[in-house]
Amino acid sequence: MKINYCSHCGSKKLVQKVPEGDTKIRVVCENCQLIHYQNPKIITGCLPIWKDQILLCKRAIEPRYGLWTLPAGFMENEETLEQAAIRETWEEANAKVEQLQLYVVMSLPRIHQVYMMFLAQLRDLTYAPGTESLDVQLFRQDEIPWEELAFQSIHRTLTYYFQDNTNEPKSVHVTELQK
Amino acid sequence: MKINYCSHCGSKKLVQKVPEGDTKIRVVCENCQLIHYQNPKIITGCLPIWKDQILLCKRAIEPRYGLWTLPAGFMENEETLEQAAIRETWEEANAKVEQLQLYVVMSLPRIHQVYMMFLAQLRDLTYAPGTESLDVQLFRQDEIPWEELAFQSIHRTLTYYFQDNTNEPKSVHVTELQK
Repeated sequence: MKINYCSHCGSKKLVQKVPEGDTKIRVVCENCQLIHYQNPKIITGCLPIWKDQILLCKRAIEPRYGLWTLPAGFMENEETLEQAAIRETWEEANAKVEQLQLYVVMSLPRIHQVYMMFLAQLRDLTYAPGTESLDVQLFRQDEIPWEELAFQSIHRTLTYYFQDNTNEPKSVHVTELQK
Repeated sequence: MKINYCSHCGSKKLVQKVPEGDTKIRVVCENCQLIHYQNPKIITGCLPIWKDQILLCKRAIEPRYGLWTLPAGFMENEETLEQAAIRETWEEANAKVEQLQLYVVMSLPRIHQVYMMFLAQLRDLTYAPGTESLDVQLFRQDEIPWEELAFQSIHRTLTYYFQDNTNEPKSVHVTELQK
């Protein structure tokens, strides 16, 4: 989001410059000298598992309306990563999950995001679309709608899952999407 | 940082309310309707290893001026987690590291941060204080200045390291600091 006015003093005198002692170009207010730092945001969510099936949500919002995704969203202030992942799964799929295990940590530098996805066990077979979902369904590996996934990050997360040996404890994948 | 003016339209008509379709209180501009989301920031850095020694930095800045820490700082837009951790180690300790391995993921909900610390091997014995450090030194386990560490997150990260069996591959610690 472009900054037009200083959120501290309301001035329009904003310049792009490298502050003293810094190495990066920042938006700086020439009136009150406030430096407007901008940093990556965390997207966190779950890969909800029921035996040999995975729970996916069909998006009811843009971007990627109508495509399938894992329940995930922006981490909020005052919550932990696990709390955020559980909340997103509840909001988007009305599903309760437990036994969370960090599984994918993916930097997306181009869009200033870091994805943090957890493996999680569905507590039961209760699930239903939340306000941001058109549909919620369980899929076996050969039923995954690979061509209708909303994001490359979700495609890669599901690929890791089905490639990893399901009988061994899974380790964390630390990776990045540059494109 | 408290928001006094809308960064989009410059209005002072900001209110705290739950936007339609949302569940959390946000700062909303009553003039242009922009919702000012605020999300946790990522602190990333390294636990730089040289044989049985760990590299620590003595802080030259507040908070915790004069206390010891691991090289770490805010992740920036347009970089990956590993790039950010390597950059911070270079800026604070003038040290080059390689073989990064994600080791600690720690939510600090009270201060809206997530710590992401990597184990990393020092490339050589070249290191020196950066502008944010008073001193940089290698410490063996029995030399760590436990009473002079800057942050509880650093204390816990070092404790994990020395408690884990050094002969086994280390897994990621996913944890939180609530206080």
